[in-house]
Amino acid sequence: MEDIQNSASKVAMPIDRVGVRDLTLPLIVRDRKAGRQHTMARVELSVDLPAHFKGTHMSRFVEALGDWSEGLDYEAFKNLLTDIIHRLEARRAHAKLTFPFCLRKPSPVSGRKGVMSYDCSVEGELENGELRFTLGVKVPVMTVCPCSKAISVEGAHSQRAVVYIRTRFKGFVWIEDLIEIAEESGSSPVYSLLKREDEKHVTEESFSNPTFVEDVVRNAANGLENHPKIEWYKVDVESFESIHNHCAFASIEKS
Amino acid sequence: MEDIQNSASKVAMPIDRVGVRDLTLPLIVRDRKAGRQHTMARVELSVDLPAHFKGTHMSRFVEALGDWSEGLDYEAFKNLLTDIIHRLEARRAHAKLTFPFCLRKPSPVSGRKGVMSYDCSVEGELENGELRFTLGVKVPVMTVCPCSKAISVEGAHSQRAVVYIRTRFKGFVWIEDLIEIAEESGSSPVYSLLKREDEKHVTEESFSNPTFVEDVVRNAANGLENHPKIEWYKVDVESFESIHNHCAFASIEKS
Amino acid sequence: MEDIQNSASKVAMPIDRVGVRDLTLPLIVRDRKAGRQHTMARVELSVDLPAHFKGTHMSRFVEALGDWSEGLDYEAFKNLLTDIIHRLEARRAHAKLTFPFCLRKPSPVSGRKGVMSYDCSVEGELENGELRFTLGVKVPVMTVCPCSKAISVEGAHSQRAVVYIRTRFKGFVWIEDLIEIAEESGSSPVYSLLKREDEKHVTEESFSNPTFVEDVVRNAANGLENHPKIEWYKVDVESFESIHNHCAFASIEKS
Amino acid sequence: MEDIQNSASKVAMPIDRVGVRDLTLPLIVRDRKAGRQHTMARVELSVDLPAHFKGTHMSRFVEALGDWSEGLDYEAFKNLLTDIIHRLEARRAHAKLTFPFCLRKPSPVSGRKGVMSYDCSVEGELENGELRFTLGVKVPVMTVCPCSKAISVEGAHSQRAVVYIRTRFKGFVWIEDLIEIAEESGSSPVYSLLKREDEKHVTEESFSNPTFVEDVVRNAANGLENHPKIEWYKVDVESFESIHNHCAFASIEKS
Repeated sequence: MEDIQNSASKVAMPIDRVGVRDLTLPLIVRDRKAGRQHTMARVELSVDLPAHFKGTHMSRFVEALGDWSEGLDYEAFKNLLTDIIHRLEARRAHAKLTFPFCLRKPSPVSGRKGVMSYDCSVEGELENGELRFTLGVKVPVMTVCPCSKAISVEGAHSQRAVVYIRTRFKGFVWIEDLIEIAEESGSSPVYSLLKREDEKHVTEESFSNPTFVEDVVRNAANGLENHPKIEWYKVDVESFESIHNHCAFASIEKS
Repeated sequence: MEDIQNSASKVAMPIDRVGVRDLTLPLIVRDRKAGRQHTMARVELSVDLPAHFKGTHMSRFVEALGDWSEGLDYEAFKNLLTDIIHRLEARRAHAKLTFPFCLRKPSPVSGRKGVMSYDCSVEGELENGELRFTLGVKVPVMTVCPCSKAISVEGAHSQRAVVYIRTRFKGFVWIEDLIEIAEESGSSPVYSLLKREDEKHVTEESFSNPTFVEDVVRNAANGLENHPKIEWYKVDVESFESIHNHCAFASIEKS
Repeated sequence: MEDIQNSASKVAMPIDRVGVRDLTLPLIVRDRKAGRQHTMARVELSVDLPAHFKGTHMSRFVEALGDWSEGLDYEAFKNLLTDIIHRLEARRAHAKLTFPFCLRKPSPVSGRKGVMSYDCSVEGELENGELRFTLGVKVPVMTVCPCSKAISVEGAHSQRAVVYIRTRFKGFVWIEDLIEIAEESGSSPVYSLLKREDEKHVTEESFSNPTFVEDVVRNAANGLENHPKIEWYKVDVESFESIHNHCAFASIEKS
Repeated sequence: MEDIQNSASKVAMPIDRVGVRDLTLPLIVRDRKAGRQHTMARVELSVDLPAHFKGTHMSRFVEALGDWSEGLDYEAFKNLLTDIIHRLEARRAHAKLTFPFCLRKPSPVSGRKGVMSYDCSVEGELENGELRFTLGVKVPVMTVCPCSKAISVEGAHSQRAVVYIRTRFKGFVWIEDLIEIAEESGSSPVYSLLKREDEKHVTEESFSNPTFVEDVVRNAANGLENHPKIEWYKVDVESFESIHNHCAFASIEKS
């Protein structure tokens, strides 16, 4: 049968990225406490395409995924990208996997454990044997407004905010490390299970530590600056303001 | 050309609803203060299909929309459904339009006006000349947790919640009426523009009126019970808990 | 500490459902071939609340989940609901879990296997010891337009459609059974991995079997009618029309 | 009342962007044929924040929006950003507005008009009096697979794809110009209203002009290269493959 993809392209322009996305795949990721954890990932895979080829062989991305083990770590991820470069005769390959990552987190006073989930991403581009690898995580926190607290006789508005951290680093960094940095950057971490004594604690703690979205993004950036292995980061904080119908946001990228 | 749609169906089953959705259309809706307001609507249109017809003539839905005026009121809406029944030779027609509705709302102390938007819906089914018409609106409010306030030395967690009201009524009801009922059901309304004196007011007011999601849904249902024209309602409240990464919700439907 | 939830409500109305949603949880589901399969579920849990109680004890939902095994089957699901009724002193409990379900599906000619994922849901309401259990699955298929094919010199527009089946049944029904019924209802199943000979087969098969969205919904409903265990179903088909920027849809509910 | 925002920040880091998002606003945009068009926009506004200030005065963004006319053109957009820089005493301001843009588009044979909508965006960053302005539009098209057509006895799979163009340019460019470039880049434009003769035409035209996602992205990039005013562009094409449950995509950015 004719291989249309290998024929010449009418418009001779190189394509930066061509590939597939929105595949769902079972995945096993590393877990600091349990060793490993089963999850489900959304997958995007792509390569560059030189100006003279009409098309990519899209099915080879799915074949590469199928032959790949389900275990995700740095080496396995690099192997997937190397395999894609070979199968698709490309110069450059890119992959992004996003998945929920769960932790059984104890509440602050009663110590009851509840499952918390964090949306994570690993993203990498391989070119000339060099992998540019980015680890990301979205962490919910609670913020209490410092202005509202200072000017009001009683109370202060609080809300959930999401701290979205993306990092590049040397060596190895746990997702859990990034979660900790994010959770320390707001007025309080959030929990899935809180008994009455826990709720009292979270309320009082958060009110003793009010934070603007500006404070949260700086605290997280500062935590990442102080991490010995992290070489680049971008922090985006979005706060679902409880007194408004819009969000406040702030972002810092290490230049 | 062959009219495949009019040929016999292999599986002789009647279809409850068949139609089109995800069309976007400019729309003019009634506004209690300004008279009328321009917005953009998402549209879904459908009819029933008897067992013996293979297919519907989908393009006629879009023709009906095109011939329809952009002005939305009860009569215009009924006319659209009547027209669809005729064009598609149906027994029953259904339409749903969802759109943002904007109000310039003054802040509670300084009186500065900011635009608030509310996601609204009108939905109707016409059969035997009778229109079953439903008006819906999603209204954000603020809630302060009564439990957190009662047990904590200082503060209480607060968050944004959404009150989703759907109603059927006799006569005419303004969207603004439903917004008011919803905004009175939480700890405080929310605003797009709050200066410092307004933020102080909203904080103190909301802390003097703590509400669970259960209180909000009951308050809204009670407000709708007391409205002289409303014959049926369903209220769904969802609260983006600031101490958790999940939502709390509650619903009451008038039986 | 004060138990505000147990205090009297100001508005004495019963609440149909009050609970939590948007929790994410690791889950193990039954798999006809592999025995079991790890996935991640979104969870919603609720109970009724009598008129005289101010609030529900929301943390007990999360405790019930935490004590629940991760293995999902009919008995385990009923146990979760029974446990919730006891913990929350309710009359009625409702739960909904949605999760991706993966199958390694061989392509039709070359037999290469690729992972397909299907969004599934289990939903149940327990009252007076009786569980009303609903199993749902969303299955992508391909449709080729019969009208376009009949009137054109060459070709016909095709597109992806989603067949969303919800069922209640006696005894046990596999998710895989529902997937099969759905996949047989369009012009062709879809696959994640297709080599050139497979693509040729899928193209030719689908063009020899053109289907309107009306055909698909009837074929699926007919398949469910013929299943010996299924007592109730609702089928919703949505087709991402390739010649339009809107969708066509159709639905049949067994009355 | 205390101005907490003006107090010193504990972590002395500059913030790249801090602001508000998810506001909805009525907007009037320029329309090549009708002169102007009413729509609804989602708005995001932000500024930079120096290291020594604790917080931004978020309400000033909403005040700037309120004093802004609803008419969107280049000058008005620049005025909004200039005003924000002054009100917030910032060095740099950024705004992004996204909105549906509607056209009454005639079908190719019968000439019947139906409303098509396109998701558009205007984005700009003002710094040192210089505005970096980006216009974007998402345009649905139809693609027929060249490989499927070449290898099959009959037919070829087709699907809807979205061409997402972002551009920077000198002088003035109509949204309609970008829509035309995108619509010429696939196998066929799509329409909201097609009578039988139109559907025949679209089917036959698209089958005589099969395109991979790679062809579409190159065709659109080529069209933008040939536009005399466009200085920079990025084209992202995503195709909802009808034979798969995943999407194919391709992107080219002018370097």
